[in-house]
Amino acid sequence: MMFRKLLSFDEAKRTIQKAAKIEPLGIETVPLLEVCGRVLAENVVARLDIPPFDRSTVDGYAVKAEDTFGAEENKPVKLKLCGKVSVGKRPRVLVKQGVATEIVTGAPMPKGADAVVMVEDTEQKGEVVYVYGAVTKDENVMKAGADIRKGEAILKAGQTLGSREIGALAAVGLAKVKVYAIPRVAVLSTGAEVTEPGKKLPSGKIYDINAYSLSIAVLESGGKPVFLGVFPDNLAEIKKALRLALDSADMIVTSGGVSVGPKDVTPKALESLREPIIIVCGIAVKPGKPTTVALASGKLIFALPGHPASALLMFHLFARPLILGLAGRKAEKALEVKALAGMRMFPAKGRRTFVMVALRRNKSGRLVANPVPTGASGAIMTLLKADGYVEITENRQFVDAGEEVTIRLFQKADAVEMKASDHD
Amino acid sequence: MMFRKLLSFDEAKRTIQKAAKIEPLGIETVPLLEVCGRVLAENVVARLDIPPFDRSTVDGYAVKAEDTFGAEENKPVKLKLCGKVSVGKRPRVLVKQGVATEIVTGAPMPKGADAVVMVEDTEQKGEVVYVYGAVTKDENVMKAGADIRKGEAILKAGQTLGSREIGALAAVGLAKVKVYAIPRVAVLSTGAEVTEPGKKLPSGKIYDINAYSLSIAVLESGGKPVFLGVFPDNLAEIKKALRLALDSADMIVTSGGVSVGPKDVTPKALESLREPIIIVCGIAVKPGKPTTVALASGKLIFALPGHPASALLMFHLFARPLILGLAGRKAEKALEVKALAGMRMFPAKGRRTFVMVALRRNKSGRLVANPVPTGASGAIMTLLKADGYVEITENRQFVDAGEEVTIRLFQKADAVEMKASDHD
Repeated sequence: MMFRKLLSFDEAKRTIQKAAKIEPLGIETVPLLEVCGRVLAENVVARLDIPPFDRSTVDGYAVKAEDTFGAEENKPVKLKLCGKVSVGKRPRVLVKQGVATEIVTGAPMPKGADAVVMVEDTEQKGEVVYVYGAVTKDENVMKAGADIRKGEAILKAGQTLGSREIGALAAVGLAKVKVYAIPRVAVLSTGAEVTEPGKKLPSGKIYDINAYSLSIAVLESGGKPVFLGVFPDNLAEIKKALRLALDSADMIVTSGGVSVGPKDVTPKALESLREPIIIVCGIAVKPGKPTTVALASGKLIFALPGHPASALLMFHLFARPLILGLAGRKAEKALEVKALAGMRMFPAKGRRTFVMVALRRNKSGRLVANPVPTGASGAIMTLLKADGYVEITENRQFVDAGEEVTIRLFQKADAVEMKASDHD
Repeated sequence: MMFRKLLSFDEAKRTIQKAAKIEPLGIETVPLLEVCGRVLAENVVARLDIPPFDRSTVDGYAVKAEDTFGAEENKPVKLKLCGKVSVGKRPRVLVKQGVATEIVTGAPMPKGADAVVMVEDTEQKGEVVYVYGAVTKDENVMKAGADIRKGEAILKAGQTLGSREIGALAAVGLAKVKVYAIPRVAVLSTGAEVTEPGKKLPSGKIYDINAYSLSIAVLESGGKPVFLGVFPDNLAEIKKALRLALDSADMIVTSGGVSVGPKDVTPKALESLREPIIIVCGIAVKPGKPTTVALASGKLIFALPGHPASALLMFHLFARPLILGLAGRKAEKALEVKALAGMRMFPAKGRRTFVMVALRRNKSGRLVANPVPTGASGAIMTLLKADGYVEITENRQFVDAGEEVTIRLFQKADAVEMKASDHD
């Protein structure tokens, strides 16, 4: 049995942040169609004017504006038709005084012309174009650089790329872009009783939950899970698994085997790694107290408890922010919503307490957070029913019913919003 | 030039919904690690009790509770040590009266025992276990089925799968699950002046935006884009492209070539398809008026305008809800936020008007929506700066400054929230 000095929640947070270098792991160049949701790793500056040339914004006739001055519905100006400009080609006409050149939307303005008369305001008879309304200089013309000027900054490193940003990258001619690499996070479960889903369940065994829920949580945090599966409570096996994980990933998340019982060998396996530093060995939190964190080969290893709800909660509190950091993503304020406490909630003595809650809307449309029973008897159902958790600090006596609390969500607010509406 | 009868916004919506059969396209069986974000296509019922057997929730001694009655700190009960139960194995001991069997957390309860005394409340001396506190029946025991009962419904068809849902599927032993197929949406741009990003830009040409922004918008709507790239304004080429698209996708989105100019050949190409029905040929909206919708081989073809902001807006209004439907996803209320209009906004006469807006928070923390200049001079920058759009119905004179309006967002609320906070 190891000596465990529990760190407070805040101490544990600080210790982990100080021990690990949390910055983007690397940069890779990725084609536009594959960068959706990725984080830009460079400032993007336009290499050219957009549009690159003066363009007509209508179908009509390119003219010298001053030639149309005085034109009215009953008093058209007559211009001589001279050539045609198509889209996608360099114009070969020169628009001189008294001349009109046919032009379509998007075509480059021919030299000499400084405005376009819309086709609706004209009539063409043979070689003569009748103009029934005057245009001013630049009318119906989109000037070169009007959208983006050459040299203009259009996107900044750190922005997440969606349809609009990727459209802008295409606009300035980029087919690929630099984005931050995706952190690889190895995930493994430990326990002699844990069996892979899909296999027949032998007597005395249970199916693995954590390697699945935690791998998906890694995905949801912008990481790439390296799924290693289940390992028995056996020092040699777990040592082997941890070495494999260190070789194949940037961070490791294990679950199970961190309590103080005879079968809890994960801490011993951690100590056996080359130059390991166990930086956190138990945290004064509820649930999740046995959580152990080590650093080996510069990589963080989170050894989480085996209880599925505790493991996922600890992952959200400690591992997720670091994965976001390694991926170059900003901390996410928006995974929080405000709600009213549905009942009085008590913290565990001396421990930062996290109460799993389900959200619903009351008649006034306010979100209300009600605790979901946790503990031994509801590991999976707790996970399914909870939308997030309320944090109660050590010094609070309780959170009172009706008090406004901040809920940290397990998933994006919109999904929860939808669920909360369903409850109406 | 075609005759165009503009439908109202509501008529266009109804017409499209009536013409197309919008239901999940199919079902596929996918391994758990690949179902993140997918939509469950079956109701999942537990095939077994979870846990499958009575389990100890602590390290200690399995006993008959009544044997410990009366035990106190100063007056221990003496029990005879008899065997040991490990995790993951069927217990081979029978716990008789006066006997205690060593047990660890998670191990199955041996026959005869009905409670567990925590190791902290005991002392073992040779073959004798001193019990310093009484336990009641079922104390420190998690009963079979306490978490999930065999036959219990745990997830419903239509639920989106995340870490918690996938953990629950693992818990009941499922390695794969049935999810709705992902709709394939072909995306192509038309225009003689449009060039692929990454290539050298010839004189008179511009880079393609829409095939990229719309492909990514397809991804963001839960579809799989089939990127076909750029086709010139040429009837034969566009016909060929549309046939290719019909063969390779469940829906088609084109952009450009839908106005009434000589180069606007997309409607003609649509008419040339086998049994085509042009169901919408212009909509009384601003922007996006030339939007054309056809049905061929039972598949919807959205022919959107070439202006990037209009194309993306029309996609959001008309195509996205249908892609969600084909994917088995629910309509998304949560892409809406309330905000105050930053200034007076006018609709175009007789047309449903959509004003692109950027969100920021005012000093009181309320979201404020300010129009982003649209039109010819800001196609890309409009896209980048807008968070969403305000809808103004045809019968409104204007939306007044300070009025509460609903903003429909281009991306998830949390991303916008973060951006709005940055502006503070």
